[in-house]
Amino acid sequence: MNIAFIGLGAMGLPMASRLLAAGHQVKGHDLSDRHRAAFEAAGGQWPGSAAEALAGAELVWLMVVSGEQAHDALITQNQVQHLAPGTPVVVSCTQSAASAMALDAALQARGLCMVDAPVSGGVVGAEAGTLAIMVGAPTPLFEAVRPVLQICGQNLFHMGEQAGAGSTMKMINQLLCGVHIAVAAEAMQLAENAGLALPLVHQIVSVSAGNSWMWGNRGPRMLQDEPPVTSAVDIFVKDLGIVADEARRLKSGVPLASAALQLFLATSGQGHGKADDSQVIRAYRRMNRG
Amino acid sequence: MNIAFIGLGAMGLPMASRLLAAGHQVKGHDLSDRHRAAFEAAGGQWPGSAAEALAGAELVWLMVVSGEQAHDALITQNQVQHLAPGTPVVVSCTQSAASAMALDAALQARGLCMVDAPVSGGVVGAEAGTLAIMVGAPTPLFEAVRPVLQICGQNLFHMGEQAGAGSTMKMINQLLCGVHIAVAAEAMQLAENAGLALPLVHQIVSVSAGNSWMWGNRGPRMLQDEPPVTSAVDIFVKDLGIVADEARRLKSGVPLASAALQLFLATSGQGHGKADDSQVIRAYRRMNRG
Repeated sequence: MNIAFIGLGAMGLPMASRLLAAGHQVKGHDLSDRHRAAFEAAGGQWPGSAAEALAGAELVWLMVVSGEQAHDALITQNQVQHLAPGTPVVVSCTQSAASAMALDAALQARGLCMVDAPVSGGVVGAEAGTLAIMVGAPTPLFEAVRPVLQICGQNLFHMGEQAGAGSTMKMINQLLCGVHIAVAAEAMQLAENAGLALPLVHQIVSVSAGNSWMWGNRGPRMLQDEPPVTSAVDIFVKDLGIVADEARRLKSGVPLASAALQLFLATSGQGHGKADDSQVIRAYRRMNRG
Repeated sequence: MNIAFIGLGAMGLPMASRLLAAGHQVKGHDLSDRHRAAFEAAGGQWPGSAAEALAGAELVWLMVVSGEQAHDALITQNQVQHLAPGTPVVVSCTQSAASAMALDAALQARGLCMVDAPVSGGVVGAEAGTLAIMVGAPTPLFEAVRPVLQICGQNLFHMGEQAGAGSTMKMINQLLCGVHIAVAAEAMQLAENAGLALPLVHQIVSVSAGNSWMWGNRGPRMLQDEPPVTSAVDIFVKDLGIVADEARRLKSGVPLASAALQLFLATSGQGHGKADDSQVIRAYRRMNRG
């Protein structure tokens, strides 16, 4: 199949490489050509513009940073004019359901079919093809793109018939992730103020009912002053911001997610937006220590 | 060894039974004689008063509900008059570090040695001897009681030399547990308002980075209207109340734990204090639905 892959960053490059390895023809594009050599070495074509990458595509897959970027590329710059009517457009950025629905409406008005398909699992999952992909799309469209999506995501979930259902599911997971990171920091910093040895605290909670995936993954990095950046504070400023926007749209109070967002915002406001998200503990330290 | 075991409820009975099975002589007491027959069948003696249970004990183990109950039995009723000087008193109720330190001071003034030793792991852990026991006590005292504690808790952690250090560790774990239950309810109820199928949401998060021990354990019971009560809402009213009191004493802001406490309080205020703690989702439903 001729596939256009837009957005060849840390996630997009390994995903597109898997499609190539599975025998598909993939033309790619990205605003940065940082990964161009790696993509070409994997067998991909890099024609140099989104228009050329899209021309003749039987399926488009977008792995850009935000819904705004997706909307800008496809609609504002009208890149979709290069696509044949009925072409499936798989949109995998993390965006609000409202943003996904607006993009779906704009694509439908141009005769195209949007597959709302955010992913979870990070770079490790993208490389291994083990991403979770949460899909909102009509069943026939879901079934049509399923073979391609499965190359990147062996955990494929059909959440509903409407664009937005996939993005809603991703938002629910991000709500839990964000609160779990922030409360891990809250617990660590309270333990610190109470004089406990933090490595022992981490070990005990890890085998207790207070454990979480994030405690295991981010906890050890909270004990480091300058840990490597696996995912930045500002990613959760964005993702919990999506939770806040969507909860407001749905008229649903989310007191814990709202409080967690304030802590990521404060960390970013203190100048640590590019730091590893475990460093939300810095907001607690600034707040609670002399 | 002659052991007095005070508090033979759902936790205390299996713990005392393990001490008996290990060959110790155990005299027991509880305000309720609900488990008297089972305790005697396991080989225990039930003399009928705390004073008689304590007389001649070489070690006392308290597994009562609260620090207030422990203080009332030992100090206010002065049951400790029956103990020889230097007898170790192991206190395993969930209480604040401040309460543990006050009890320690009162016991020391009477020539006794307190071992601050709250437990985690529930009835299942009590029966299997796999409890986590978090101990605050001077090292020589910890070493002296270690062989007895290990009969009930193979995960034995020495948190510090002072009474209160064990209770602080338990509080940190309960902070995480309480917030994780409340945020699971928040995420479930937002997903519900957004129209997602909750069993599918539970399945997806369970294999994603948003997972927690509580999501796996309490999540399925949130999907039931009247689940069996494994641990009641009012337990977290108490345990997050301890977090709030201790954080105030330490002058540490804990915004997430404070918000979670409000949700358990509201659930209890709506008349559901005896319901399973997963039913904190009722507070969200009352708050967010018409």
